[in-house]
Formats: sequence, structure tokens, C-alpha cells
Amino acid sequence: MIDLKYSNNLIPVVAVDARTREVLMVAYADREALELTRKTGFAHYFSRSRKRIWKKGEESGHLQRVVRILVDCDEDTLLYEVEQEGVACHTGHRSCFHRTLEGEEIEPRILDPEEVYRKHEKRD
Amino acid sequence: MIDLKYSNNLIPVVAVDARTREVLMVAYADREALELTRKTGFAHYFSRSRKRIWKKGEESGHLQRVVRILVDCDEDTLLYEVEQEGVACHTGHRSCFHRTLEGEEIEPRILDPEEVYRKHEKRD
Repeated sequence: MIDLKYSNNLIPVVAVDARTREVLMVAYADREALELTRKTGFAHYFSRSRKRIWKKGEESGHLQRVVRILVDCDEDTLLYEVEQEGVACHTGHRSCFHRTLEGEEIEPRILDPEEVYRKHEKRD
Repeated sequence: MIDLKYSNNLIPVVAVDARTREVLMVAYADREALELTRKTGFAHYFSRSRKRIWKKGEESGHLQRVVRILVDCDEDTLLYEVEQEGVACHTGHRSCFHRTLEGEEIEPRILDPEEVYRKHEKRD
């Protein structure tokens, strides 16, 4: 396994739809989250706000099955290729990147987050 | 324009091929780099190691024309959709994410970096 460069014990992770290649979200992993991801096959991250490991979809059921993990040339960023159950974004959009810098929605909301999520799943 | 959340005056940026959606690289922008990107239409970043603004391709010629800029739901990460001139990675690979966590190359080297780059263009 490639020796990764963590910053404050964290490494950024880009989660990408393995089929469409769409960028779904960006979050952070620590060593334990990465180990859990590799061991279980489901995406785990480290929540900086909640200061704990977080299994993606643990509250919403919108799990990410990790097909492959890539590393960038500097070995300080990861890419999870995932099969996304439901939607990645707590807003009910498929991707967290559903707006332009000017605030225009480029992707429709697929789900009503109030109905689907038992609790707001804050990513980071 | 959406009010962005910077961390230590930086915001991570995922650069994606506007046509294929392939993730090319992840780097960081400060307010000035983002402003230059918007003004010029070419991707600018802030190099953490060199502590200065950096126009992607300024040494290699491998510019990124920015087609659209997206923001994530937390407003703390950007996505540049780009038309990539040549390759994004200083190794000569199209994408910086050309290896698995186990070190397996998943994408061929397109260019010999020694020939193409006048100088190693360190990204971050």
C-alpha cells in the first residue's frame, strides 16, 4: 500500500460515482476511516465537526460501496470510486456539487431530505 | 456569488475534465486565485509549498480553461470543470489519480515529463 501523507491526521477524499464518474462529494478520512473502508467495502470518513468516524449513510441508509480507491501523484488525496445508494447529498441531490458559484441549481433534487433522512447527516 | 468557507484562507478545488468528467487533480485556491480564475477563464491555484498563486500550466503549457465552477452543499469545496490542455499531472499522466492505493498504475503515461516540462511543476 502506498504510504500516504496526512495533514493533521486527515486526508481529503473525493467520492466519485464508479459508473458515471460524477463527483458526488468531498470529505476527509483518517487512518482508521480508511482502514474501515478497506475492511468493510463501505465508505467511512472522519467528521471534523463531530470529531468522529462516520460511515456514509449510517443514518440515511445511503451507503457508498467502494469499488476502488485511487491515490494522487502527491499521495495526499484519495479518490473513492463508489456505487452510491440513493443520493450522496443531505439536501436530496445526487451530488453535493449541484450549484454553480453563482448559486444556480444545475441538478434537480431527487429526494425530499425531510422524508428520507431520519436526521440531518452533516458530512463534515 | 455564494459566500464560501475558507479554511486558513484556502478552499480545496477538484478539477474535472468537462467532457469526460474524469477527476484530473485536487489543489487549493485562495480568494485571489479564485478571482484570477474567474477573471481570466484559466485555472489558478494557491501553492501551499511555494506559498504563492500558481496558474496551472504556467511552466508546462498545460493550461486548464475553466468552463464552469461548482460549489458543494457545505460551501467549503469547489469543482472546476475544465478543458485540459495536454495532461494535468506532472508525471505525464492525464490525471493525477493514476494509481490504486496498492500502487497499481491504471492509466498509461501519455507524455514523458522530462521532455515536456521545462521544470517540475509542483502542484501543492
